[in-house]
Amino acid sequence: MRASRFFISTLKEAPSDAEIVSHKLMMRAGMIKRLGAGIYTYMPMGLRVIRKVEAIVREEMNRAGGIELLMPVVQPAELWQETGRWNKMGAELMRVKDRHGRDFAIQPTSEEVVTDVARTELRSYKQLPVNFYHIQTKFRDERRPRFGLMRGREFTMKDAYSFDRDMDGLRKSYQAMYDAYVRIFTRFGLEFRAVAADNGAIGGSGSHEFHVIAATGEDALVYCPTSDYAANMEAAEALPVDSARAAAREELKKTPTPGKSKCEAVAELLGLPLSRTVKSIVLAVDNEDPAKKEIWLLLLRGDHELNEVKASKIPGLGTYRFANEGEIVEWFGTTPGYLGPIGTKKPVKVVADRTVANMADFVCGANDVDFHYTGANWGRDLPEPQVADIRNVVEGDASPDGKGVLAIQRGIEVGHVFQLGTTYSESMKATYLDEAGKPQPLVMGCYGIGVTRILGAAIEQNFDERGIIWPTAIAPFQVVLCPMGYDRSEAVKAEIDKLYAQLSEAGVDVVLDDRGERPGAMFADWELIGVPHRIVVGDRGLKDGNVEYQGRRDTEATQVPLADALAFIKGKLAS
Amino acid sequence: MRASRFFISTLKEAPSDAEIVSHKLMMRAGMIKRLGAGIYTYMPMGLRVIRKVEAIVREEMNRAGGIELLMPVVQPAELWQETGRWNKMGAELMRVKDRHGRDFAIQPTSEEVVTDVARTELRSYKQLPVNFYHIQTKFRDERRPRFGLMRGREFTMKDAYSFDRDMDGLRKSYQAMYDAYVRIFTRFGLEFRAVAADNGAIGGSGSHEFHVIAATGEDALVYCPTSDYAANMEAAEALPVDSARAAAREELKKTPTPGKSKCEAVAELLGLPLSRTVKSIVLAVDNEDPAKKEIWLLLLRGDHELNEVKASKIPGLGTYRFANEGEIVEWFGTTPGYLGPIGTKKPVKVVADRTVANMADFVCGANDVDFHYTGANWGRDLPEPQVADIRNVVEGDASPDGKGVLAIQRGIEVGHVFQLGTTYSESMKATYLDEAGKPQPLVMGCYGIGVTRILGAAIEQNFDERGIIWPTAIAPFQVVLCPMGYDRSEAVKAEIDKLYAQLSEAGVDVVLDDRGERPGAMFADWELIGVPHRIVVGDRGLKDGNVEYQGRRDTEATQVPLADALAFIKGKLAS
Repeated sequence: MRASRFFISTLKEAPSDAEIVSHKLMMRAGMIKRLGAGIYTYMPMGLRVIRKVEAIVREEMNRAGGIELLMPVVQPAELWQETGRWNKMGAELMRVKDRHGRDFAIQPTSEEVVTDVARTELRSYKQLPVNFYHIQTKFRDERRPRFGLMRGREFTMKDAYSFDRDMDGLRKSYQAMYDAYVRIFTRFGLEFRAVAADNGAIGGSGSHEFHVIAATGEDALVYCPTSDYAANMEAAEALPVDSARAAAREELKKTPTPGKSKCEAVAELLGLPLSRTVKSIVLAVDNEDPAKKEIWLLLLRGDHELNEVKASKIPGLGTYRFANEGEIVEWFGTTPGYLGPIGTKKPVKVVADRTVANMADFVCGANDVDFHYTGANWGRDLPEPQVADIRNVVEGDASPDGKGVLAIQRGIEVGHVFQLGTTYSESMKATYLDEAGKPQPLVMGCYGIGVTRILGAAIEQNFDERGIIWPTAIAPFQVVLCPMGYDRSEAVKAEIDKLYAQLSEAGVDVVLDDRGERPGAMFADWELIGVPHRIVVGDRGLKDGNVEYQGRRDTEATQVPLADALAFIKGKLAS
Repeated sequence: MRASRFFISTLKEAPSDAEIVSHKLMMRAGMIKRLGAGIYTYMPMGLRVIRKVEAIVREEMNRAGGIELLMPVVQPAELWQETGRWNKMGAELMRVKDRHGRDFAIQPTSEEVVTDVARTELRSYKQLPVNFYHIQTKFRDERRPRFGLMRGREFTMKDAYSFDRDMDGLRKSYQAMYDAYVRIFTRFGLEFRAVAADNGAIGGSGSHEFHVIAATGEDALVYCPTSDYAANMEAAEALPVDSARAAAREELKKTPTPGKSKCEAVAELLGLPLSRTVKSIVLAVDNEDPAKKEIWLLLLRGDHELNEVKASKIPGLGTYRFANEGEIVEWFGTTPGYLGPIGTKKPVKVVADRTVANMADFVCGANDVDFHYTGANWGRDLPEPQVADIRNVVEGDASPDGKGVLAIQRGIEVGHVFQLGTTYSESMKATYLDEAGKPQPLVMGCYGIGVTRILGAAIEQNFDERGIIWPTAIAPFQVVLCPMGYDRSEAVKAEIDKLYAQLSEAGVDVVLDDRGERPGAMFADWELIGVPHRIVVGDRGLKDGNVEYQGRRDTEATQVPLADALAFIKGKLAS
């Protein structure tokens, strides 16, 4: 590509609504252009990256046996009503009426449509397994679209759906997708991690998320550096404490803690480590009969955090909400900050985190403003509690596989593989006939990759103060040729044109900057855009028969004999 | 591709709602699957054709200097309000509100969005010309979606938009697109014709349609076999009659024509050719003041047809409608079937077609039920009329370029190139700075290709009683290999696997039917699907060292030595 025949538009400053680095850099590099909240035009430079991402996804999906089709953006509400998602999805589902008043959804995913395809097309066990996928425009009406392509409303997603005769088949299809995802993210050239995710009803290893590692990631990933264990924070189990609970040594004592409503302040006042305190979290579970409303008290060690997903799995807490101050006063007789499990005003259900259940001589609120108890002990001062894992793990916790201790890093979710089972096929009556001619529900899996989100995640992982640093596989161009005086020096023009022709011939995705920009502006543009390899051709170097190579991460340029330039670049691209 | 790893689903019968052959065959061949009215899932077999069409379009657009980007499907109403299309487009524009109640359009085209891109990105004459295009999902809420992909609601379109500094530049950009379209449709392997189209305000040669020729086409294409002249019916001029009007020879005579309200019946009754009769068409032009409503009488030769677009261009008729019976009775004192230009009850504006103005001794309604005039003559029996070209041309009319006579064929519109001028840039204030630093409106062109419609059009042109006959360039597979007993004969398996590997290696898009179907069913499938080249490998042929080749249009198979098969197929694909 000659730059003069392409469209390059860079900005010195990012618009003020761009909050994170990938959004800023994509705007500055002219990769995207905002059309509305969470809606972007993919400009020519950005589209090149998207197409490379799509091509890799497509190749690996095909290699893994996926069959591409294309399902519509506008989908009849009837199908969404069959699965109940028409109501369940709420405001995120963009809904539209046609000229006859019929309801349609703008697809956020395509489970319903693909299941409809399957129930008419997959009639016999002989046709299974099948994996249909498409790469298509999606719309999700986010409440707060932000971060550019990271949380947009219109986006491109690859979604695949596998159909098997039983769980065994599903597990094979799932593993094939998992392996394909590993190949895909490896080919992207991104540092990533697959983590076990919470998958609600199905349990087991039925769901994994693929995350691009980035310090700015929204998600905490838990892993064990000395084993294969990896899970997202929601799913990472905090094991019970290994040792037996210590015996009580202190007396229960109501201690004044005036104005100290936080565990940190109480611990400081008392000269105790934070890990000796217990914090109280009050949840409410509503009932149609208001008299049957339940109030639950969840207890966590002062330095731990509640894991809301784990809490929601405790029988009875499936639909909890946080209690309001009025409820706290009514049930505990005190305001938040001083409440605790001992001597509540009305009965509450107490759940202690595994760690808390193992504590002795702990500090907790005394249900009296400006007072805490010290020396509290289970079985003596209060009944043994219901025990559950309700906290987020922390660095240094034992790995659930028993093979080391946990570490935590940040990630950006870009892929998800999920064992759906028969949820959709049962609600939509999607069955196949088995060997005995008996209808059986299709067993499904679904597998997504956020194609446009990959761009944001790749940048969050790969940038510096000058701009983006694309991995070669998904860079808009692999190599940029920068002439020093393309219009002034015949030698420069002749040699760089020749090199351009050679590289193009060799199948290298190269751009020749023939725009006539001054060197400073030209270099700044391509560093901002993030092309990974740069060759500069100038009269000075040519005198010695050299051109100048600089990788986007290199701090210095390398002189390369002109005659070796092609081989040199090929070597760089191969490595 | 091995058929066992692909998804093939054929039907013996087309669903009853499929009216035209391309729709029936696409459904039977498993290329598309209906999701809702005018909304289809592109099944794997159909998607392969779409991708080939897209690839050719993309290559030729890039070659012509087009720059690909991707504009969103969901577009803010504000832009559509700027150009007034939000109101003008009516029910065809699918409208949707987001969770905050803001209005959006599901794009039917992208003039507004691309003009918005241009007004911020194209600031200087130095950046011009630019041609942005995208290949994207469109939605048009047709009142009566039908004919499968021919008149769907959701469809894929390539739309390109050129930006120039002046009309001269636009004409060059336009010609480049015209030339690219000729290359594109030639590469598709379709018989097509570019015809001048009516382009409303701009005039001149500012609009052409590209039609795939098919007997079942909705549009009539007018062309001159002995020159380059070609236009669609709306735009094809009917020249004035070459000879002077004959002198009056008959007397005006009110003749009884009881029950004969049609020209054909009157001509038959009177023993005259239809071309001696004149038919009357009554139009109304409403006015805010009902007293100022105008009634117009348009006169056409009995064997000619009104061209509604031409009529709408007569000054004063821009907003005409057909008059109703009440109006006809009020103005003519008679019911339809017997009205005419002589002796109307209230004054009407008379427009005679050029042919009618040249007639003498003609027959027309007498404004009296069951009576016509014969021997009517201009200037004598009624005033000389306003004359205009208001009819459709017919075969044998003189070509407007004076180089022969016109012929007519049917076509399916699949592409359109259009000189927009400054309509959009002026309403959206999209300007660039010229050399003097003065803002000037960008001069625009737009260029569409109905990507998914191409499939329907290609089939309407290329089918037989057995199914589709794809041109090789856009066939889902170029070659199908059919083994006689893949699972039974080791020799067949070995040889066909080898041939499959050789063809794949050579870059041929080949499918090996390893499904184990019986020969009859297998051949029927591939003939229905329309793969243009078939090789059959069986033990009988192998004994003589032969395989069997049959082109999809061939009536008989050809024996080809196995050793020559690769070269033979390559030769077929090259020709």
